[in-house]
Amino acid sequence: MRKVDPEKHAARRQAILDAARTCFARKGFHQTSTAEICAAVGMSPGNLFHYFPNKQEIIGAIVDQEGEETAAFFQTLGARDDLHAALLDFMDLVLELAADAEFSSLALEIAAEAGRDPAIAMRVGRNDRELRSALQGLLAEAAARGQADATLDMADAATWVAALIDGIFSRVAVDGEFKPKNQHATMRVLLGRFLRPQADASTVTAGA
Amino acid sequence: MRKVDPEKHAARRQAILDAARTCFARKGFHQTSTAEICAAVGMSPGNLFHYFPNKQEIIGAIVDQEGEETAAFFQTLGARDDLHAALLDFMDLVLELAADAEFSSLALEIAAEAGRDPAIAMRVGRNDRELRSALQGLLAEAAARGQADATLDMADAATWVAALIDGIFSRVAVDGEFKPKNQHATMRVLLGRFLRPQADASTVTAGA
Repeated sequence: MRKVDPEKHAARRQAILDAARTCFARKGFHQTSTAEICAAVGMSPGNLFHYFPNKQEIIGAIVDQEGEETAAFFQTLGARDDLHAALLDFMDLVLELAADAEFSSLALEIAAEAGRDPAIAMRVGRNDRELRSALQGLLAEAAARGQADATLDMADAATWVAALIDGIFSRVAVDGEFKPKNQHATMRVLLGRFLRPQADASTVTAGA
Repeated sequence: MRKVDPEKHAARRQAILDAARTCFARKGFHQTSTAEICAAVGMSPGNLFHYFPNKQEIIGAIVDQEGEETAAFFQTLGARDDLHAALLDFMDLVLELAADAEFSSLALEIAAEAGRDPAIAMRVGRNDRELRSALQGLLAEAAARGQADATLDMADAATWVAALIDGIFSRVAVDGEFKPKNQHATMRVLLGRFLRPQADASTVTAGA
């Protein structure tokens, strides 16, 4: 029996995930066969199943990897001096990802599959909880440093940032005129005004 | 041949749409048969086809009706004295609709069907353009009255309000902890700060 080289195994696994991302984004998850993924990565179907038992596990691993990448990115954000600026930079990255046709198509495919498959919904829900928790932690620390409005409920504020992220990807799907790359400035006005410490605390509740 | 009473016809048509909304929200669009809609409304399948040739036309009519209701609501908003307050009241209504399990399930079904059926996507896209146009008109008039920040690009501002609306419905689907009824105050802080005239115009571009 051939010995498995862990590094080679990880590299092949990653090549499958990368090929699958492209296929799912272009053709849709259900319209993509495992044979097409195999062809894209240059692997026999029998060999693929040493890495993933089925197509659901491939999309599940893609969701897991996106969660890991977000967590790693928040590690670097948390190390910055200005956490308000760090959050706005994160939102710039979200707009760049939304402008990437492959990434945003894949995001829609994942959302659709979460509506059909409870196991995928669970993994998407876990990523979402971790994202909101990371946002809340960043905002709370920003408030402690005087870089964000400490009168905000930071769990609610994190929820609205998450709603904005969802909304950005939804705009890409619904609104053909929406160009994420043109929206950096308005996003910074919207979130900047929401989050920055208020000179006059009485304005916080003055909605109208 | 029996003469058609237009009022009775309109009432029956509306009864079909109401029953279909409930069925689609509860079971999903594809899992609902026209026979079930007929049973819910007390009508024979043969009779149903005097109103709608197929299930796609029923969901299409539901989308059209939501567009008409939104347009009518913006007519009443536009007649208000304080248009900033009117917009925040509109967003309160969005949160109430998102808290309505039937309405939010139906919104998800419509979005999913728009992803599958270009004719539905076209009608959803038309509603979306009309909503953004109505928002932009309201914001521009608010700015002219000194009720909103005139330095904002109102097309972009309308787009971000639309993104927030999308985001609210997405939160309902993804985040089990999201309770729209608890989010009125934070929504008003977020949009209130974004839209209100700025005391110091230099803060507009100060993102960080």
